[in-house]
Amino acid sequence: MSENSKPVLSLSNINENIVKMEYAVRGPIPARAVELIRELKAGAQLPFTEVIRANIGDCHMMGEKGITFIRQVLSACLHPEAALNDPSLPEDVKERVRTLLGACGGGSVGSYSDSAGIEIIRRHVAEYISERDGGVPSDWQNVVLTSGASEGVKALFALLNSPTDGIPTGIMVPIPQYPLYSATISELGMHQISYYLDEENEWALDINELDRALREAEGTCKPKVLVVINPGNPTGSVLTKENIAQIIKFARANNLLIVADEVYQHNIWKEGAAFFSFKQVMAELGVKLELASLMSASKGYMGECGIRGGYMEMEHFDPAVKAVFFKQISARLCSPVIGQCAIDCIVRPPREGDPSYELFQKEKTAVLASLKGRAQLTTSTLNSLEGVRTNPVAGAMYSFPRISIPEAAVRAAEAVGQKPDFFYVKALLEETGICVVPGSGFGQIPGTWHFRTTILPQPDTFARMMDRFKAFHLGFLQKYQS
Amino acid sequence: MSENSKPVLSLSNINENIVKMEYAVRGPIPARAVELIRELKAGAQLPFTEVIRANIGDCHMMGEKGITFIRQVLSACLHPEAALNDPSLPEDVKERVRTLLGACGGGSVGSYSDSAGIEIIRRHVAEYISERDGGVPSDWQNVVLTSGASEGVKALFALLNSPTDGIPTGIMVPIPQYPLYSATISELGMHQISYYLDEENEWALDINELDRALREAEGTCKPKVLVVINPGNPTGSVLTKENIAQIIKFARANNLLIVADEVYQHNIWKEGAAFFSFKQVMAELGVKLELASLMSASKGYMGECGIRGGYMEMEHFDPAVKAVFFKQISARLCSPVIGQCAIDCIVRPPREGDPSYELFQKEKTAVLASLKGRAQLTTSTLNSLEGVRTNPVAGAMYSFPRISIPEAAVRAAEAVGQKPDFFYVKALLEETGICVVPGSGFGQIPGTWHFRTTILPQPDTFARMMDRFKAFHLGFLQKYQS
Repeated sequence: MSENSKPVLSLSNINENIVKMEYAVRGPIPARAVELIRELKAGAQLPFTEVIRANIGDCHMMGEKGITFIRQVLSACLHPEAALNDPSLPEDVKERVRTLLGACGGGSVGSYSDSAGIEIIRRHVAEYISERDGGVPSDWQNVVLTSGASEGVKALFALLNSPTDGIPTGIMVPIPQYPLYSATISELGMHQISYYLDEENEWALDINELDRALREAEGTCKPKVLVVINPGNPTGSVLTKENIAQIIKFARANNLLIVADEVYQHNIWKEGAAFFSFKQVMAELGVKLELASLMSASKGYMGECGIRGGYMEMEHFDPAVKAVFFKQISARLCSPVIGQCAIDCIVRPPREGDPSYELFQKEKTAVLASLKGRAQLTTSTLNSLEGVRTNPVAGAMYSFPRISIPEAAVRAAEAVGQKPDFFYVKALLEETGICVVPGSGFGQIPGTWHFRTTILPQPDTFARMMDRFKAFHLGFLQKYQS
Repeated sequence: MSENSKPVLSLSNINENIVKMEYAVRGPIPARAVELIRELKAGAQLPFTEVIRANIGDCHMMGEKGITFIRQVLSACLHPEAALNDPSLPEDVKERVRTLLGACGGGSVGSYSDSAGIEIIRRHVAEYISERDGGVPSDWQNVVLTSGASEGVKALFALLNSPTDGIPTGIMVPIPQYPLYSATISELGMHQISYYLDEENEWALDINELDRALREAEGTCKPKVLVVINPGNPTGSVLTKENIAQIIKFARANNLLIVADEVYQHNIWKEGAAFFSFKQVMAELGVKLELASLMSASKGYMGECGIRGGYMEMEHFDPAVKAVFFKQISARLCSPVIGQCAIDCIVRPPREGDPSYELFQKEKTAVLASLKGRAQLTTSTLNSLEGVRTNPVAGAMYSFPRISIPEAAVRAAEAVGQKPDFFYVKALLEETGICVVPGSGFGQIPGTWHFRTTILPQPDTFARMMDRFKAFHLGFLQKYQS
């Protein structure tokens, strides 16, 4: 028998939206960093001895430890026979494990949950939201437990993707943005309506700019959604309550559903800044817009990225539409039950008087204080450099500094077919082992150049990184300014 | 401020493919079962005191326990400090935990993995496949770790979905089929080419029928994929090696990519039956077709549904296409790391001489022997009834019996706007508390009626279920034959 005919799939006959899609956070620069790590391990002589991966918001990879209470609960949920008889395990951990397993089919995290997640955890999420928002009610039946926050966005966008007469669905996305949004829009063949965040104003949303973007899209798409990321990724901004109120009014005036990516709600660093949920501000305004709010186990003080826990609250949706959404997600059966249990720990942490309270508070406070220190150090170090300017890292885990790239470097980049910010970031990686993501992966005003760095390397590594970055940057300026 | 304008999303302006999509395994019958459970809990007087959920292949929900080795490893990966110092934990468990955590960023399962999964686990999967297939080589770089098997199918179908000039992509799907396939095809707006399995021949694939289905689809779509589920869901069939060889030749002759859903590869019950992977048979034939083979942590002897572990091996794909697929899945970051660790345990179970070997073998053998007994009992009980006829449950976890529904019952069903099999299954649930899924949820030859039951209730429950089913069925015949 002969071997085979031509392959069924080739670049020319697969989904062109996916061929075109980009996801810079895991793009060529991080891929090159992984290669460099391999080369170092194999004994290669490079200008550095460690690669510092400041390209992704992955706390544990950068040395943060899991919160003991969360880990004890998850670990015991998987092997309860041993754990529940262990006298060294705190009683509130055991109690939590009994509650969670009691809500699992057959008392096992190995059974499927309801597609929207375990009921009691959804109820706890609703209680958390209501408490967070000063008593604004939350209905547990609006809460869906998801595999990280990404799954909720992808499913929701698929649901509302409904091109009519060749006119695609439009989604308003901030620039710069987290590339999950552009990637999903691209994959689904939707239209991205880009609005620029106001860099001169700590990355606030300027309503005139929202308006400009929406007008410009007229006729090219049917706008349905306004995405806001607060605290900001990649910007590290925190929106004021007044700004949020303006945005809500804009969405109402233009009949837009708001997707509020609020996964960094625990990560507030700047003095005077505070997290306000879109839901709370909406309630205070007495407005009832459709709102999808996202939260994740991956960020905050817990940083449990690999666990894949998250939730989405769907407020003020037409019940018929919500029913379709619930049917839609049933085909993936359920999100990881361990991730659901992690969400339970996050929305219902130990309370004062519980045996685990003191340690939990200590660990949580230490992580947040340490991140706050790194946020401030990032801001001050970057702003101390000629040709680098960042807004304060007010929240989240990132800085998105603007860099002036000398004309000669722009020409050198063009000569090798690279964008100048990519060229800069690639040189940074090759010369220092520091891996950050070029601004072009998130979007930026044409002709301006940025990169995104996380604030996540542990304090000693972080100090080394800042030193090496300074040296690189000055050398780069010198090389191309001469 | 006023309340709000009209909602953005309504049934008439969202994705109509998703509005139309069906997923019977979690459809109205299982939803009604959940209601009945609530009613029983609330003290309602019903004709039964327990609901038996035979609608879904969820072993742990039905009382199966997790395998100790797997649970010890997963539990310890989440809280290694305690576990690695626990003298009661077997050394091979500790060794495995050290290996797995050593491969995680920062030594934590809380960090993201590579999008395709942790390299060492992908290598172990490849070794497992090669050993399973009598030495046929497997390249770890073709292995992608997924959130259950479903995620792989959904991503692959999205990738190859490429309508041209209004002609949709065609996917050949067996009837009856597992509704993940029809639901995904429907969601993506692709064309389902249904081929009927040969019920008279233990649900084998008849090449003439494949040919008929493909010809009939000519002009309506561009066929790209042939889906085969072996062992069969919902049929409980196991394909012979000869049949697999015929199918491969058919796929080659018609330039089709094969998706081999092989998640039940450990679940073989019938004497003389054996599992042969499509990959192995392909290698023996010397054929090099594109093949995506699926495996899951949810089935087999482990039944870890809630953990969401799985893999897909992508054999003979164009490297450029595979690169696009890897980029595509990077936007969801990674599958649950705990699910990946479960896959590691499954593909590299304790070996003879390891401290955990004896207990592992004992537990695995006991689960499989017990399931085998229930498979045989299902077959014999159902076939002992007038008007019920099932093929032997040769593999997987299901029987898909054909039922003769009396004319009077067909009319009674029509009178309430229900399909006769739905009507039958609904009555079964309301009268006995037994929840199975109507055949129409999987597809069947028009005018024939079936249901799918799992073989998963534990032996004592299972015996009660068979007794109650018998009584119901006889009563149903009596009621509608008079």
